[in-house]
Amino acid sequence: MIKAGIIGAGGYAGVTLVSILLRHPQVELIWISSEPAHEGKKLSELYPFMRGICELKCKKAMEEKDVKAADIVFLGVPHGLAMDFVPDLRKAGKKVIDLSADYRFKDKEVYEKWYIKHKGAEYLKETVYGLPELYKDKIKKAELIGNPGCYPTAAILGAAPLVKEGLIDTSNIFVDAKTGVSGAGRGLNLVTHFPECNEGVAAYKVMTHRHSAEMDVELGSLAGKNIEVAFAPHLVPMNRGILASIYGILKKKIDQQKLIDIYKKFYKNEPFVRVIEGQGLPSTKEVYASNYCDIALRVSENKVVVLSAIDNLVKGAAGQAVQNMNLVYGLDEKLGLESVPVYP
Amino acid sequence: MIKAGIIGAGGYAGVTLVSILLRHPQVELIWISSEPAHEGKKLSELYPFMRGICELKCKKAMEEKDVKAADIVFLGVPHGLAMDFVPDLRKAGKKVIDLSADYRFKDKEVYEKWYIKHKGAEYLKETVYGLPELYKDKIKKAELIGNPGCYPTAAILGAAPLVKEGLIDTSNIFVDAKTGVSGAGRGLNLVTHFPECNEGVAAYKVMTHRHSAEMDVELGSLAGKNIEVAFAPHLVPMNRGILASIYGILKKKIDQQKLIDIYKKFYKNEPFVRVIEGQGLPSTKEVYASNYCDIALRVSENKVVVLSAIDNLVKGAAGQAVQNMNLVYGLDEKLGLESVPVYP
Amino acid sequence: MIKAGIIGAGGYAGVTLVSILLRHPQVELIWISSEPAHEGKKLSELYPFMRGICELKCKKAMEEKDVKAADIVFLGVPHGLAMDFVPDLRKAGKKVIDLSADYRFKDKEVYEKWYIKHKGAEYLKETVYGLPELYKDKIKKAELIGNPGCYPTAAILGAAPLVKEGLIDTSNIFVDAKTGVSGAGRGLNLVTHFPECNEGVAAYKVMTHRHSAEMDVELGSLAGKNIEVAFAPHLVPMNRGILASIYGILKKKIDQQKLIDIYKKFYKNEPFVRVIEGQGLPSTKEVYASNYCDIALRVSENKVVVLSAIDNLVKGAAGQAVQNMNLVYGLDEKLGLESVPVYP
Amino acid sequence: MIKAGIIGAGGYAGVTLVSILLRHPQVELIWISSEPAHEGKKLSELYPFMRGICELKCKKAMEEKDVKAADIVFLGVPHGLAMDFVPDLRKAGKKVIDLSADYRFKDKEVYEKWYIKHKGAEYLKETVYGLPELYKDKIKKAELIGNPGCYPTAAILGAAPLVKEGLIDTSNIFVDAKTGVSGAGRGLNLVTHFPECNEGVAAYKVMTHRHSAEMDVELGSLAGKNIEVAFAPHLVPMNRGILASIYGILKKKIDQQKLIDIYKKFYKNEPFVRVIEGQGLPSTKEVYASNYCDIALRVSENKVVVLSAIDNLVKGAAGQAVQNMNLVYGLDEKLGLESVPVYP
Repeated sequence: MIKAGIIGAGGYAGVTLVSILLRHPQVELIWISSEPAHEGKKLSELYPFMRGICELKCKKAMEEKDVKAADIVFLGVPHGLAMDFVPDLRKAGKKVIDLSADYRFKDKEVYEKWYIKHKGAEYLKETVYGLPELYKDKIKKAELIGNPGCYPTAAILGAAPLVKEGLIDTSNIFVDAKTGVSGAGRGLNLVTHFPECNEGVAAYKVMTHRHSAEMDVELGSLAGKNIEVAFAPHLVPMNRGILASIYGILKKKIDQQKLIDIYKKFYKNEPFVRVIEGQGLPSTKEVYASNYCDIALRVSENKVVVLSAIDNLVKGAAGQAVQNMNLVYGLDEKLGLESVPVYP
Repeated sequence: MIKAGIIGAGGYAGVTLVSILLRHPQVELIWISSEPAHEGKKLSELYPFMRGICELKCKKAMEEKDVKAADIVFLGVPHGLAMDFVPDLRKAGKKVIDLSADYRFKDKEVYEKWYIKHKGAEYLKETVYGLPELYKDKIKKAELIGNPGCYPTAAILGAAPLVKEGLIDTSNIFVDAKTGVSGAGRGLNLVTHFPECNEGVAAYKVMTHRHSAEMDVELGSLAGKNIEVAFAPHLVPMNRGILASIYGILKKKIDQQKLIDIYKKFYKNEPFVRVIEGQGLPSTKEVYASNYCDIALRVSENKVVVLSAIDNLVKGAAGQAVQNMNLVYGLDEKLGLESVPVYP
Repeated sequence: MIKAGIIGAGGYAGVTLVSILLRHPQVELIWISSEPAHEGKKLSELYPFMRGICELKCKKAMEEKDVKAADIVFLGVPHGLAMDFVPDLRKAGKKVIDLSADYRFKDKEVYEKWYIKHKGAEYLKETVYGLPELYKDKIKKAELIGNPGCYPTAAILGAAPLVKEGLIDTSNIFVDAKTGVSGAGRGLNLVTHFPECNEGVAAYKVMTHRHSAEMDVELGSLAGKNIEVAFAPHLVPMNRGILASIYGILKKKIDQQKLIDIYKKFYKNEPFVRVIEGQGLPSTKEVYASNYCDIALRVSENKVVVLSAIDNLVKGAAGQAVQNMNLVYGLDEKLGLESVPVYP
Repeated sequence: MIKAGIIGAGGYAGVTLVSILLRHPQVELIWISSEPAHEGKKLSELYPFMRGICELKCKKAMEEKDVKAADIVFLGVPHGLAMDFVPDLRKAGKKVIDLSADYRFKDKEVYEKWYIKHKGAEYLKETVYGLPELYKDKIKKAELIGNPGCYPTAAILGAAPLVKEGLIDTSNIFVDAKTGVSGAGRGLNLVTHFPECNEGVAAYKVMTHRHSAEMDVELGSLAGKNIEVAFAPHLVPMNRGILASIYGILKKKIDQQKLIDIYKKFYKNEPFVRVIEGQGLPSTKEVYASNYCDIALRVSENKVVVLSAIDNLVKGAAGQAVQNMNLVYGLDEKLGLESVPVYP
């Protein structure tokens, strides 16, 4: 049994991670911690749906004996905080999967351009970007993983084959993404106050959202050149899910079915990517509470639209973290992640 | 491995049952059927979220070799249709769990008063009402189970201890229930057309809904006398969940905590009933996509209010059916049903 | 033109009041104020939907020249604050409509039992409860009006004829109310954070909510005896609307149609109460953004259920306040309030 | 008083038109008709929210005396049906505002490419595309108006200044639009069944939706050359509203504020277009149930994103029709359309 601890279990990604790990056949969740105000509280006090399921109490983070007892530590804290914990955890020899942005970039300058000063940059050289569909071999050998952001997961999986195969004009990629409100976290904010976001849809942080940095780096790396995606996130009145609608200009005409075949080939060994053939288009409902990423394509003349749907808290956060953990431990990638989407 | 078949897999309860059985460690789902128009179609054509998960095709119902191959058959068809299948399935020696109303009543007249003429009434004598918290011993020995309705599950579990212990005036019980829209099924109807039910709440079938018959019979049986509950169901703009708010008049004053203790004792061996102590009140969110029933109580002077929340498709239908199957086969009641509520 | 000012324009009821008064043919809205943090800000900064519609800035409350310039002042502040303003406004000879609870009760002790110590109790003797369907004549002559709470508006209008005509057992009245989330105001709270309340329904403050005091006093006054309603409010994932489902025990059997006739007669001069005949039942959607109260009734044996639906921000707050103002000034009660419900 | 009739009052656009016309100070709504099955029914039977507000009954369409009595006739019927009525109405000398697609295109071939064979094409030469912000002078003199589609209204208003001023590469315009579910009409469909669309977002008819034809024609006309927009509509779980997110490539760099100034100048005489300056971005909530179109812009390097929000049933249908009628009759464009957005 893998002994796991979670720092930052009190957010939506954190509690989703608890839910998955509690039912994982090869994991024992041995401790959790959350923000200082939650210390000593049961997780089921913060989240009553956990009554009778998880009676763990939130501990102070990084107690020596806790760190010692764990084989692997998941970080569900906000960016900027993870870098406070990672160096010590790595020094203690622990495997780390960081759900924040702190270890998603090898390049400190990119991180610091979009986020803040990096205080634990010495570990950037060993970090691996935890998108298994692109970096499976590296992940298997990794000890420190930067788990991708929710938007980048949907957008990169959607665009990767087009970019990798050199099929589109990389200087003009537009990503219009729609997210459920849990993507904004559990912190209170007027924007996510029910009456303010229900019954409306709006864009926010158009071409200034930090997640575009991950898309730029990862797609740029696939293309072998600089890419700057135009990224516009939108808030949709639903709890969960991300749909990324990716718009591109084809370098030369290509038949829609041929492109679908390229995608199917690209993802043929990936158990969680479902490339849709035929009439269907992805809906976030169809991946609800699951680790799937559903992708479809449409081509018209020289234009291509890719639709890519995930559950932001599972494939976009906690599920992907567990998928990474499975790979790190040489387990079946799907272990603990086979839940069927909840529908309707 | 238990070999299971499903007749009526195309409805919301049916497809939820497929989801659960596919992941049940002791079950092999060997065939499914749905309405004639679906014959030959893959379930994933009817429900694209099943792509890559379930590639079973809908077969014609009751093919001889299918019946033969199954140990147990679940019926997810509408009431009135189940009675067409049950006699033949029972003659073939199959265990049957019927999710329709057809075998919920021992008394043919009660059924016929609220529903239609019963064509398979000779099997009513052997049927067991599949509410494990009340009839566990009978269910363990049953071969034919009438799986409870969604509203009655919430209402009966909420009211049972009060009624059984003779604490309330049984002539004045009011049940105000709120359901998510999936409770109305997948059939199209103006009432469940999104723009017609979103952003509104309304009562329907006030004191004329058929599910009150189950409440009357089961609570009456606990009380040892005739009960006629006043039942008012309401449609709430959400997908899943039922909250039953039960109003009663106490025969004599009782302390709230004492009443909670009575409930805790009543359900002390029931893994899916969570009696809430302290400040909390049940929310349907906290049992979302799980088999739990959360119950809380409030007492003020001579009045009592019980709140009882379930997921209508799991504890209110498919989950309870699997719980019954587990009991029938002597398995751990919780097998295949341990999914953590999906939150948020 | 009536010159009106609003103290507390920054809440949902306040901004709804601004919307109505801006379009009222006999009113000039001359100033608004909100909480100190908003001083100097345009209302359209707080509420961008007001861009180009209302360019008024929030002023400091109670500036002498503002008070002087106004004929009538509306108070949209929380309870406990209104009593700070009312005495001075009344001394200055201004008519006042207070949307808080501070002047809803003639009896200081009732107020203090449910709320806090009353600092402006000397004006309680002149205040009139602003429910026009019950107190039209008094309102016409009033100078200080306590505008009813949203829940009491729905519940009292629903129960009044039954109670007034002595038809039900007044010791056993249950009110199960369902509210949209705007009823909780614009202040941030985990309970009204979108992911926490969307896709769920839950009761809160069961039999302890302060609005039951208004129901008790007003229904008690109609009955000529003490009434204690059992009141259970529920939060529903929608923006607006209240549905009160009222459960009672009839003293003697009465025909449903006869009861409907009693209601129609009771409300025959009331332009905003629509008693529904026939099959229909009220939905909050059907009164959305309007000043209507829709009422229907169901009788079965000795039990009666009344359904009463309003828009919580219009008939439950700002619309009713304007209706009261119209009466105070001898105008047509409907002036400025004839907007058709927004549907769907 | 203008005497108006409506053919096709039973759909969402139709009933919204009734709501507006009933409160319009210069209009008398003298008759309505709907589909044959509704003949003889009161509108309030089809839409109970109209109880006590509109007691008009649905008549047979095109009764001679009705046509004669009307000054203007609005058509709220589906495309393909309007062309059955328009020729006769025009022969009878009636002004016509057609909310269907039948008279939106001067070019019969364009219509027939995207829709069906045109049976009333002889009137295409006189029809005017009813987008007042582009064609005000023509509309003032028009007798037959093709009222724009909901998506084109949002998209064309959003893109027009960019295209007209020759600022963007017209061969690469992407429109990602998000609509509330009322946009799909009142007809039943699995896609708009509440549990199927609530809690999910999905694209549909990507680059094949008919509304792209209007965008192509109108933007092409502004540009003076052929344009083919890549249009991807998405269904969002809310009742009302359209947000069009328009992505383009700037021909040469332009400062964001300068572009905003161009927009403000372009729309300076348009009372219903609100160009947003500063930080704000449009939300469909902020135009809910109003005739506004809110527009904002973001520029980054050579890319531009325009966000354009309307209420699909008001500015996208019935409100715009009334705006057109006002212009036709030389009235203030805003008459009957000054309702404040409903918020929250």
